[in-house]
Amino acid sequence: MAVIVPFESHSTPSIDRLVSLVADDMAGVNTTILARTGSEVTMIPEVANHLISSGGKRLRPMLTLAMAQLAGYVGDGHIKLAAAVEFMHTATLLHDDVVDESELRRGKLSARMLWGNEASVLVGDFLLGQAFRMMVEVGSLRALDILSSAAATIAEGEVMQLAAAKNTATTEDEYLAVIRGKTAELFAAACEVGPVIAERPKAEQTACRAVGMNLGIAFQLVDDVLDYGGTAAKLGKNVGDDFREGKITLPVVLAFRRGNDVERDFWIRTLERGEVADADLDHAIGLMAKHRALEDTMQRAEHYGAKAVDALALFPSSPMKSALEQVVAFCLARSN
Amino acid sequence: MAVIVPFESHSTPSIDRLVSLVADDMAGVNTTILARTGSEVTMIPEVANHLISSGGKRLRPMLTLAMAQLAGYVGDGHIKLAAAVEFMHTATLLHDDVVDESELRRGKLSARMLWGNEASVLVGDFLLGQAFRMMVEVGSLRALDILSSAAATIAEGEVMQLAAAKNTATTEDEYLAVIRGKTAELFAAACEVGPVIAERPKAEQTACRAVGMNLGIAFQLVDDVLDYGGTAAKLGKNVGDDFREGKITLPVVLAFRRGNDVERDFWIRTLERGEVADADLDHAIGLMAKHRALEDTMQRAEHYGAKAVDALALFPSSPMKSALEQVVAFCLARSN
Repeated sequence: MAVIVPFESHSTPSIDRLVSLVADDMAGVNTTILARTGSEVTMIPEVANHLISSGGKRLRPMLTLAMAQLAGYVGDGHIKLAAAVEFMHTATLLHDDVVDESELRRGKLSARMLWGNEASVLVGDFLLGQAFRMMVEVGSLRALDILSSAAATIAEGEVMQLAAAKNTATTEDEYLAVIRGKTAELFAAACEVGPVIAERPKAEQTACRAVGMNLGIAFQLVDDVLDYGGTAAKLGKNVGDDFREGKITLPVVLAFRRGNDVERDFWIRTLERGEVADADLDHAIGLMAKHRALEDTMQRAEHYGAKAVDALALFPSSPMKSALEQVVAFCLARSN
Repeated sequence: MAVIVPFESHSTPSIDRLVSLVADDMAGVNTTILARTGSEVTMIPEVANHLISSGGKRLRPMLTLAMAQLAGYVGDGHIKLAAAVEFMHTATLLHDDVVDESELRRGKLSARMLWGNEASVLVGDFLLGQAFRMMVEVGSLRALDILSSAAATIAEGEVMQLAAAKNTATTEDEYLAVIRGKTAELFAAACEVGPVIAERPKAEQTACRAVGMNLGIAFQLVDDVLDYGGTAAKLGKNVGDDFREGKITLPVVLAFRRGNDVERDFWIRTLERGEVADADLDHAIGLMAKHRALEDTMQRAEHYGAKAVDALALFPSSPMKSALEQVVAFCLARSN
């Protein structure tokens, strides 16, 4: 029996269709972002725009716009909510750089290297304040509830990561709790507010939230894999960052559990004690290959990706629905 | 003609009457604060309670409760708003310690010295998120608008201070703009939300906001004076902190403007270039005495205190009104 493979399955998954479907709304978001980073205090737009215009994909605000469209929302509240989501994300990045003492962000010098820790902390706080102002203007208490709860949960996830940092005994479930908080919660909230302001039934709100939550987890797991060169062992520009910072991610959790005593000593020396020699990254990648840690992390990511797609199944076929399915595939395909 | 001086004007002004009038509500605020710093991530309550239970006067949440009472508010929304105000204040202190690289806070080791900059940044973010959640629960969009705008303005004021830091050319008006933002705005918002949730006329909302704004400015100016030993040159535990950190405050602005070239070189060397020798603090205090910089800063503070009391005049006589007048007098009397 012949299997008919549709042409599209051969093409590389991309976010282009989503980008074009939300292009008009996104122009509004960009205008809003520019207007709301404005301040007579010149350092604020300088620092904020350094990061905002540094070429992030703006996946999170696009998801808010996409879900509002999927839910048939009529109005312009989704524009402000999407801008608020991007501000929350930017504030998190500014504060993360201080927490991680990062020197680079998206290949450029981080804001804290250019303007100091002070500016990163305070401009982050300013953006958070502006994000809440925009949400208040939209006037949906339920959307405010979702996004303010997300803000608390994100910080909670980051503190959890801090507590788990350099601890090779971290379990897979503990790690999952960390990334649900620090990454997936904002994806979930960004998606959930769309049907909420469209006043769609609870089932649709829950479905959109599940799309975001599962996509967010998958996204973070793929990031973790990419940080060790991906399953194809490609050497991207950030390979080894997590390793050098002693971050415990799922590939490490799996390799550590599956390793023998000598291998565990290696992980404890490098990640817990921070004693890293030149050849250690290669050795770490070798251990991950031996235990299929990257492949199996990708398998977990695909599991969450599949859940995200299944959550979309509630909605009838539409160009937006299929564009969102492509986004899930795109996020997973980044590792190849 | 004999002037009859009422007995009370002889007594030392205190906040005791305010404390006793809001005692019941404050018990509710304290319970709420404890409940809302709770988290399975144990570092969060540890860090938050280190600061929250370290003996601040909780003036800001008391003002929210007082204004709600003054406005005849019936309900329990003011409890959550007062707790939210205290969380916003605590978050600001946690982030300030990172910005200022402070080692002490209220005479104890600062949170960042005990748990690191990371925890201070992230627990601050968590408290900010929790503050917004509580405001959302109260459900007043207008109160949310006031407090979220305050959050952005506070951060803006702090960035402004950063930009003005170590710049002896700062003018009195520029300095006033800084403290309106970084200190007075939260006092103003804390006071304004009381009549707002009581749905009182706009004139009362504006009056309460003015009480907070002017009290906040006076409060900060007195703090600035105390940092140089007060007008009575008492040596409190924090004398000289601002000087050593190169902070430009109103006493410095006045002494610099009024000084000769040699004196200005002194201020530039110590505050801008940070070259501070042992005897420099005494010399700075001497220059302030010469130019009456502390006395005149107190005169400015008294001006704002008087405006705060006049803003209260809209309200009929009541124990709460006179307790609030005492609070203004108390804040001013701290410098003697």
